[in-house]
Amino acid sequence: MPEAQLAMSRPILHHRTAQFKELLLESRRNLQEIFRTEHDVVILASSGTGAMEAAVTNLLSPEDHALVVVAGKFGQRWAELCQTHGIPYTSIDKESGQAASPQEICKALEHNPKMTAVLIQGCETSTGTAHDLEQIAKRIHADFPQVFIVVDAITALLTQPLESDLWGLDIVISGSQKSFALPPGLSFLTLSSRALEKIKANPSPPYYFNLAKEATQQREGQSAFTPAISLIIGLNETTREILGQGLDQVLAEAELMARATREGLQALGFTLVSSSPANAVTAAFPPEGVSSVELSKRLEGDLGIKIAGGQGELKQKIIRIAHLGYFDRLDVFSVLSAIELCLLKMGATIELGSSLQAALAEAAKD
Amino acid sequence: MPEAQLAMSRPILHHRTAQFKELLLESRRNLQEIFRTEHDVVILASSGTGAMEAAVTNLLSPEDHALVVVAGKFGQRWAELCQTHGIPYTSIDKESGQAASPQEICKALEHNPKMTAVLIQGCETSTGTAHDLEQIAKRIHADFPQVFIVVDAITALLTQPLESDLWGLDIVISGSQKSFALPPGLSFLTLSSRALEKIKANPSPPYYFNLAKEATQQREGQSAFTPAISLIIGLNETTREILGQGLDQVLAEAELMARATREGLQALGFTLVSSSPANAVTAAFPPEGVSSVELSKRLEGDLGIKIAGGQGELKQKIIRIAHLGYFDRLDVFSVLSAIELCLLKMGATIELGSSLQAALAEAAKD
Repeated sequence: MPEAQLAMSRPILHHRTAQFKELLLESRRNLQEIFRTEHDVVILASSGTGAMEAAVTNLLSPEDHALVVVAGKFGQRWAELCQTHGIPYTSIDKESGQAASPQEICKALEHNPKMTAVLIQGCETSTGTAHDLEQIAKRIHADFPQVFIVVDAITALLTQPLESDLWGLDIVISGSQKSFALPPGLSFLTLSSRALEKIKANPSPPYYFNLAKEATQQREGQSAFTPAISLIIGLNETTREILGQGLDQVLAEAELMARATREGLQALGFTLVSSSPANAVTAAFPPEGVSSVELSKRLEGDLGIKIAGGQGELKQKIIRIAHLGYFDRLDVFSVLSAIELCLLKMGATIELGSSLQAALAEAAKD
Repeated sequence: MPEAQLAMSRPILHHRTAQFKELLLESRRNLQEIFRTEHDVVILASSGTGAMEAAVTNLLSPEDHALVVVAGKFGQRWAELCQTHGIPYTSIDKESGQAASPQEICKALEHNPKMTAVLIQGCETSTGTAHDLEQIAKRIHADFPQVFIVVDAITALLTQPLESDLWGLDIVISGSQKSFALPPGLSFLTLSSRALEKIKANPSPPYYFNLAKEATQQREGQSAFTPAISLIIGLNETTREILGQGLDQVLAEAELMARATREGLQALGFTLVSSSPANAVTAAFPPEGVSSVELSKRLEGDLGIKIAGGQGELKQKIIRIAHLGYFDRLDVFSVLSAIELCLLKMGATIELGSSLQAALAEAAKD
């Protein structure tokens, strides 16, 4: 966002000043509104994975047992974090593109009454799959009220509904580089009262990622260690802008862009990877005979459009189009036009303009 | 630095691009030159404390025993990190302003042959005290060749001589916000071959701060997790600028600014806190009857000059003047002039212009 870029290029503030304190407090309040919580939000100088590790090491110990939902690469990261820190865990392993249902999560919890936490993604970015967090949280709280719910919402925040307090999500994580459209380097965590209580009781918290210490200090506009000042200045700007637009408006736009992208791609013969497609990113298999690798190369080489490929077992098989952050509905048309042009050059048989027509039809519903 | 600020406000690059890879590789090479090492330098998205924790958790385990030099608040941080991670340690506790000598470090190592590492600051910023790393490393390597040397050089780098390879320093740490004059949010670690070997053999490395993984990936211009892209763009610019000036020149300037500041303050009746004063920051007790707190407030309120105070037992007793980063020799005269003006207003008896005269005499030796 140009305003945030300009703000970040101002001469740096010192972090032990009244001016920075005000700015940190305002950013924290803005994040509370965006995460829909009245409880603590902690800002860390790290990328999102640092915040995921902080959640695991502060909240859990070898006395706990985590249920890890693995719907792709980022779910796998929860499992690796538990492994690294000796946290016993059980995983629900989903096929690529499948979301975990509230039922199967509760079944797994029922199977092992020792489980104390569920670790999940709001959106599994590697396959473009959304989890129905509202229903999942509802079912867990009804049947297993003692179980903590920890959500990696790095790409889910501001692209799909997310009510931290209302749904009883204990820790929700995000980062600066997705919907906030900032450079990477900041991560955020919400902490419910009971999560903070459990974290405070942890006899061996980590040092740099000490969430209890940060929560206490950040309430006063301080931080335990030198904060990433320029990025927080950018955050202040970008959260103001988001709240100015209104959360409902931001979410509606995210949904519209995702629907238009999905319809557009399908009109060209692409198949969605996910049966529960997310609003943050669309993952799709190309039409028969079209190489996803060649398509990506042409998009970047000929037209300067960078899209992502697959990871793990989906490597070289799919394309992924992100539609979040500094991206608006007209960008959907640019991307689809570019894909049509490249497919034509690659000799694919497509009905010219069909993706744009399908996307327009979606956009017109607004 | 204006060039770095401009560079950081350019539209963001994606980190999985050839362009960013080139930039990361060049920044890494520049850091190698600046740290005076041919071995790995790892860049992390965290502030300096994150890198200190990474050094402790990757290199050491409960089988090790660390000798921790505590000459102030930052030395204390090494001790707290060892405590946090169950690393047995012994500390050498120095009075405020005293440096640890090579002799006493070696005596402590002799006393306990189980010791495997020395954790120390190049400059203890809380008291403005420099350690003679060259002599310390020389003595340790001569008598205890198996002992690893880990240096927090967050403020020492580029303000005092530092030869990572030549002196056999195993891990040297710095951060973006001091001599590099960038916003906070990046930290750096060098790894000697034997440090990397020990780190690779660690059966339970941390996840986000996994130095072996980062070292391997960063050799190829990649990173294990999303890097703090905008700050790395700034780093590229600022390291180029530093190498363009030449390291000898940068160090000579740092020394000159420190000497001029020390002489200027002493001419006004200030007493240095340190008997081994550092070039990064000068800590001093004010003349009898002058309140350091009032002086700091006036400097900021009347003239917009921000200086630091004391921490811990030195709280409200000293002033600390940083002279590193985006700071040049003429800034020394601004700060001293401002101090003279404030002292006058506070009714202190000073010889007008005496600090400037003393500082000029030092600057003229150049």
